Amino acid sequence: MRKSNKLKIIPLGGLSEIGKNMTAIDYKDEIIVIDCGLSFPEDEMLGIDIVIPDISYLLKNKDRVKGIFLTHGHEDHIGALPYVLKKLNVPVYGTKLTIGLVDVKLKEHRLNNVNLNIVKPKDIIKTNLMEVEFIKATHSIPDACSIAIHTELGVIFHTGDFKIDYTPIDGDVMDFHRIAELGKKGVLVMLADSTNAERSGSTMSEKTVGLSFDDIFKGAKKRIIVASFASNIHRVQQIVNSAYKYNKKVAVSGRSMVNVVNVAKELGYLTLPEGILIDLNDINNYAHDELVIITTGSQGEPMSALSRMAASEHKKMEIERGDLVVISAHAIPGNEKTVSRVINQLFEKGAQVIYDDLEHIHVSGHACKEELKLMHRLVNPKYFIPVHGEYRHLKQHAELAKSMGMPSENIFTINTGSVVEFGKSHARLAGYVPSGNILVDGLGVGDVGNIVLRDRKHLSEDGLMVVVVTIAKENGKVIAGPDIISRGFVYVRESEDLIEKAKVVVREALIECENKQIREWAYLKNAIKDELKNYLYEKTKRNPMILPIIMEI
Amino acid sequence: MRKSNKLKIIPLGGLSEIGKNMTAIDYKDEIIVIDCGLSFPEDEMLGIDIVIPDISYLLKNKDRVKGIFLTHGHEDHIGALPYVLKKLNVPVYGTKLTIGLVDVKLKEHRLNNVNLNIVKPKDIIKTNLMEVEFIKATHSIPDACSIAIHTELGVIFHTGDFKIDYTPIDGDVMDFHRIAELGKKGVLVMLADSTNAERSGSTMSEKTVGLSFDDIFKGAKKRIIVASFASNIHRVQQIVNSAYKYNKKVAVSGRSMVNVVNVAKELGYLTLPEGILIDLNDINNYAHDELVIITTGSQGEPMSALSRMAASEHKKMEIERGDLVVISAHAIPGNEKTVSRVINQLFEKGAQVIYDDLEHIHVSGHACKEELKLMHRLVNPKYFIPVHGEYRHLKQHAELAKSMGMPSENIFTINTGSVVEFGKSHARLAGYVPSGNILVDGLGVGDVGNIVLRDRKHLSEDGLMVVVVTIAKENGKVIAGPDIISRGFVYVRESEDLIEKAKVVVREALIECENKQIREWAYLKNAIKDELKNYLYEKTKRNPMILPIIMEI
Repeated sequence: MRKSNKLKIIPLGGLSEIGKNMTAIDYKDEIIVIDCGLSFPEDEMLGIDIVIPDISYLLKNKDRVKGIFLTHGHEDHIGALPYVLKKLNVPVYGTKLTIGLVDVKLKEHRLNNVNLNIVKPKDIIKTNLMEVEFIKATHSIPDACSIAIHTELGVIFHTGDFKIDYTPIDGDVMDFHRIAELGKKGVLVMLADSTNAERSGSTMSEKTVGLSFDDIFKGAKKRIIVASFASNIHRVQQIVNSAYKYNKKVAVSGRSMVNVVNVAKELGYLTLPEGILIDLNDINNYAHDELVIITTGSQGEPMSALSRMAASEHKKMEIERGDLVVISAHAIPGNEKTVSRVINQLFEKGAQVIYDDLEHIHVSGHACKEELKLMHRLVNPKYFIPVHGEYRHLKQHAELAKSMGMPSENIFTINTGSVVEFGKSHARLAGYVPSGNILVDGLGVGDVGNIVLRDRKHLSEDGLMVVVVTIAKENGKVIAGPDIISRGFVYVRESEDLIEKAKVVVREALIECENKQIREWAYLKNAIKDELKNYLYEKTKRNPMILPIIMEI
Repeated sequence: MRKSNKLKIIPLGGLSEIGKNMTAIDYKDEIIVIDCGLSFPEDEMLGIDIVIPDISYLLKNKDRVKGIFLTHGHEDHIGALPYVLKKLNVPVYGTKLTIGLVDVKLKEHRLNNVNLNIVKPKDIIKTNLMEVEFIKATHSIPDACSIAIHTELGVIFHTGDFKIDYTPIDGDVMDFHRIAELGKKGVLVMLADSTNAERSGSTMSEKTVGLSFDDIFKGAKKRIIVASFASNIHRVQQIVNSAYKYNKKVAVSGRSMVNVVNVAKELGYLTLPEGILIDLNDINNYAHDELVIITTGSQGEPMSALSRMAASEHKKMEIERGDLVVISAHAIPGNEKTVSRVINQLFEKGAQVIYDDLEHIHVSGHACKEELKLMHRLVNPKYFIPVHGEYRHLKQHAELAKSMGMPSENIFTINTGSVVEFGKSHARLAGYVPSGNILVDGLGVGDVGNIVLRDRKHLSEDGLMVVVVTIAKENGKVIAGPDIISRGFVYVRESEDLIEKAKVVVREALIECENKQIREWAYLKNAIKDELKNYLYEKTKRNPMILPIIMEI
């Protein structure tokens, strides 16, 4: 793409959610990238581990990319860094905790030569043409920021993920004054979090959850197990606070929880009273009413610590009759069934389970309608791009902006890869850049495409049947086989008859070819495939993948 | 199982939900079966179409089974009949609409020799030892009933699926008086619907949805598309009523919607004003403001009519900019993502979409806490078995009963297959009968078990690699191959190098065997498998299924 005098904003990456994992700000000689996250695969992406943004647009303009600026340390905002930095090693900027979490991630991937920069809220990073300002925000992880980018054409204000918490746990309130100041001076365009744009009212303060923990922990005679997101350090802090208040010890379970607690402790984001933390191996040295166990697994992830406890597969502890389990999280869409399964198992083991929003044991990290309205009024932008949400959320956020008086033509409800272009006195949709997603499966980045996924789906539904025949080179006669091997199709021991008859069908197809004096492999294979497919469908109403293999001697 | 003098209640079938698909009432010489439904497969049941109850307990006691009594016509209560009746051809009893829907189903399966019996509410079917009484209930399908079974030991009251609707669409109010009468005389045990036992308050009347339709349809200039469950005939009736009121025509889309509308019309459960129904092929003859299209697809099912309209794959119509789509349903847990995808697509096509409970365009068919309390007070049973829900729902329903004063020991929160036994003056858990679920895949009933599913899962995650080698009988030398074919593993054209090296690995493994003078096939196969597995994992961190095939000439 030719460089132009226009300012361009382009969301990159993200599956159903738009403008979440990565956003490019492109102006003349420079490109600024906001965030670099991953997505978790959709159901139909069989076998895929994670999904990262397609950065071919950035690679094509490699020399112009000045840096990656991180709003906060959640996976969907930093998780693609190890992959992206391998191809595009630019400086990375973020607050202390964010960079701390990035650092752990890069070490796991053995990436050492990365230019990591710790910033503080109010810091401004200057490039030749732009100034990137970090502004304190509140979210479900500490040290989150909004980002304002100052350009000749005006200010771009990106909220980052946010909620408005008037009483945050660390006392570090979002920088309303700076936002108001920017709004007063004039903001060209705002990009704002749309996650909860369908929800009316306001998200409660994180502090309300602490009050619920106090209620639950106070006088509890039971062992308490609390499941939460590892990265929600303020939640962990509140669990620790309530435990301390009621003379309980805290043990931590689950790899990511242990990791985050360590990083947060080291960097000073978690305050642990002397001696409160005990090793999970030592919990049996304490009475049940002295114990709180913080664990991963709030989404019912099958391999998580809580799931393993519920299924009696955890090495160090098991749920016992009388335990009190608090699931301090809301099921992310798509996880409802796995969460429900864990709750059922916990109840069956005789635990008491608290799992509902009704109990005020969880609050969202994203702004609801009334908070979004405050942000719109404070920032008062000329143009608006709803981001961070599925199309339905962006649409509702756009409606909200309209209801507050913003003209429709100033709102851009866009898709991933869309370019919104700003000139001195206009803004318009200006086409698309290559975008999309790269599937990561094991070490393979981008080597699993539609054909492989289609085959996996086919195999997953009806299994496969391999047919092997050896034929003589000189006369095309069958000299061994057909042999048939199937997997994932039927239970072979109980279907011997079906398999034997399938061999007959193959033999007949081969004889037919022989009679017609056809010896091309492609034809033979197709003949086997077609006849067998019809036979199996007629007998079973299933369509296994059929792989005919011909060996010639 | 030996016949005894005790009365036994046994829930059979159902996946995560207990006491939903089928319940057996076993007393002396007789077994009464309530409902005969199917479940839809869980995510990990790859390729499975439906799941039906394991009826081995009933088959073992075949001669004692007196009949299947249906509470209502939903799939999870009648859907297993075609499979069960093939093995256990007993009389079936149900109300007119229920039997009408069963009849369609049996015809599809070409089952003709079934003894179907239409009953009316208040009817009593007598066996030698029991009297089975049908009692009018309200639910999200017309003609639903509770069932009371009168025995020497007392009355068993099974609510069936129900909500308390004081103003049902057909005016046919549930039979409070009979329930109260039974309660006054004394009920031994109640089995009651627990679906909404976690929800406080009361479910709104179906009538409220009609008022919303009126609001939406009134003066609408747009084409209106309403997605709903086909079986919710009262919902369909209300759509028709609102369309009629505002001078619109109604077209029907989606196979199950067309089927149900036909049955309901024929049996008198749907009142259609003359000329209101038009063919979907003819919609282009009408202006947009004259049209209402009722369609399936409220759960975002990929092959449903609404999904196809949203994806531009419907043969007869497409969503156009300015259409108004009403999704008159709530996503069933597990369907959130597919529903969301359809909503996103509809918005992207420029439709207006109404999809939230906030708009009062849907009400549940199940009783919330306050309704459950009324039922408990009216029936006033001595014992209580919560049914029709996941374990968490049964547990909450049990808590509700306790909170109303029922002693814990009189409540049985049980699992599928559990036997609750009643004597003259006691009730107790009395072990388990064989129970569980049978997977149906195409024509195969029960032939897909754990091994096949495990293979499908393996194949779905990493695909497979087939290795074929032909060796000479006389000396064990390789005379053709190794050939390698892979599917669902990597995109072969871009991985030729990997595949070539994999062949080298196989050759080396075979040479090693030859050097050791080992010629047993099992050993050779394992050697190939192990070496290849290690090689592929090292190179890709993936574990495809490896199928070594040795042909001997």
